[in-house]
Amino acid sequence: MKKIVVDIYGGDNGPEVVIDGALSVLAERKDIMMVFAGDKEIIAPIAQEKGADESRIEYLDTKTSITNHDDPREIFHGYEGTSLVLALEACKKDSTVIGMLSCGSTGAILLGSIFRMGLLPGITHPCLACSLPTIQNNGHVILLDCGARLDSTPEDLVDFAIFGNAYAEAAYGIKNPRVGLLNVGSEEGKGSILLKTAYPLIKALPINFCGNMEGNDLLMGNFDVCVTDGFAGNVMLKNAEAVALTTRGIALRMADKYSSVEAKSALKTFGTIVYTNFAYNDLGCSILVGPSKIVAKPHGKASEKTIVSSLHQLLNLADGNLIAKLSEHFKKKEGK
Amino acid sequence: MKKIVVDIYGGDNGPEVVIDGALSVLAERKDIMMVFAGDKEIIAPIAQEKGADESRIEYLDTKTSITNHDDPREIFHGYEGTSLVLALEACKKDSTVIGMLSCGSTGAILLGSIFRMGLLPGITHPCLACSLPTIQNNGHVILLDCGARLDSTPEDLVDFAIFGNAYAEAAYGIKNPRVGLLNVGSEEGKGSILLKTAYPLIKALPINFCGNMEGNDLLMGNFDVCVTDGFAGNVMLKNAEAVALTTRGIALRMADKYSSVEAKSALKTFGTIVYTNFAYNDLGCSILVGPSKIVAKPHGKASEKTIVSSLHQLLNLADGNLIAKLSEHFKKKEGK
Repeated sequence: MKKIVVDIYGGDNGPEVVIDGALSVLAERKDIMMVFAGDKEIIAPIAQEKGADESRIEYLDTKTSITNHDDPREIFHGYEGTSLVLALEACKKDSTVIGMLSCGSTGAILLGSIFRMGLLPGITHPCLACSLPTIQNNGHVILLDCGARLDSTPEDLVDFAIFGNAYAEAAYGIKNPRVGLLNVGSEEGKGSILLKTAYPLIKALPINFCGNMEGNDLLMGNFDVCVTDGFAGNVMLKNAEAVALTTRGIALRMADKYSSVEAKSALKTFGTIVYTNFAYNDLGCSILVGPSKIVAKPHGKASEKTIVSSLHQLLNLADGNLIAKLSEHFKKKEGK
Repeated sequence: MKKIVVDIYGGDNGPEVVIDGALSVLAERKDIMMVFAGDKEIIAPIAQEKGADESRIEYLDTKTSITNHDDPREIFHGYEGTSLVLALEACKKDSTVIGMLSCGSTGAILLGSIFRMGLLPGITHPCLACSLPTIQNNGHVILLDCGARLDSTPEDLVDFAIFGNAYAEAAYGIKNPRVGLLNVGSEEGKGSILLKTAYPLIKALPINFCGNMEGNDLLMGNFDVCVTDGFAGNVMLKNAEAVALTTRGIALRMADKYSSVEAKSALKTFGTIVYTNFAYNDLGCSILVGPSKIVAKPHGKASEKTIVSSLHQLLNLADGNLIAKLSEHFKKKEGK
């Protein structure tokens, strides 16, 4: 039976929303086990109250956790016995564990995945991948890196292209995903030194590289994967969500002012559509790609709904064999 | 009398929209002269037909222009007599010229502004600044660089902070504009090597530096200036416009489907609000900051309306003494 490790700490809304979300997914998927890293005295009563199948629950019992005030770099050698370190170690040691979820410090998860869990052979730096709904074709685009590797090198961008390719295959069953390199213009030869250096390297990969894409192409559905450095990916992702939810806010404030029931209803329906397309933080999570198991990283503000959708995202990637696909791609790359 | 030089070539919609827009501004503002760089045989009949005040029109008569297929680097020593080179030279030679507008190749305008016009003392690289309406407080935020300096150095970011500060003062009369550094988190010490190096340098400037800001802060009205590298600025700007106009597209398509007049009208009103807040390319232009005169660079797809608002933006910056403010700031910086 496949196991998912859930770090109950690190979220802004307390451990309960994480536990509730995980138990809800456990009830839906009879083929998995949940391994909770956290205080058993908090978790067990909730599981009992909800009538959870306790034969499919395990505990990494601990009362300690890493907070956002702790220095993530200390995870190299410290924070023994904290929920995050126990979760990372379980991923490393237990071959039946397919992945983990933690709402905690991104820096600690990132460094912990390298030094406490370990990366897949051939991978030197993990990255954060986000799957965003596109506007056309009901598709998705994988944006990466969203902030793990701020000083990305050309070689990193090459790895991100491979990560994104494997992600799109595993999550959506896309054959030959269309991979784009985010740039300031569509023509070959455009861009910074980083982009000009990375372009021919990505072009040489055995993937469907479709050249440069621009900021306005991200959500238009013409690319399945958008490769960029961790800084640009992070600011663009946060800005896109904010812009969309701001336009939704305008519509909802307008709805309050209209007396017509039809007008109110139309504006609210519009608000719902925008929300389901653009509320990235509420409706999903970043996936840390590169570690030997799948790591789901919801936003710190995650609600129970966020935890549920994040775990489904993790399971979907596991069902699509993300890790096997990644290993295969990196073997091909190494063999070249 | 203040002169503005207008390069009539380079726009996707032909010279007529540029000429029409410029003549319309000339009719509004009796205190300026328009200097057209382009074919007098095309421009003069239009001016006559529109009953323009011909005593306030001058010509840099030429039938040749630089196209997007030409290599912008050639402008160092070539393209003599083209409309763009004549415009740049007029900015350099004629002290009554306050600035210029061109819809042509960004690369050619950028290099031309350095090698054919010249930069202000102390400035080594110009940058592209965009003024975006914020959602709250009916304010604006100056985003820079939007694509002139893709391989930005820490020293460039320092200069962008000064540019943005002067821009916000000149355009909106803001005393001590709130300047932010775009980053992946708000805490000091976050970010790439570039950002970590730039942070203390910007902090040491005699401006109101308010620390790091994130991608979702851009349009929220808590900062007047957003400093970032040319790559991130470019992709974020294009993405923000695309996301907003996409949500507007969703609303307008919904409007078509509703039979209720009130619902249709509410959704269309919403569409108009989003358009006037987010259609950056239609409603304004980038300003190249650093050259000795103000350079307005509307999008290639500029309509007559775009040209009008771009010229007003240029005039507003000239009325606010952008160039004098910049010179003063750079003198202070040099004097340190």
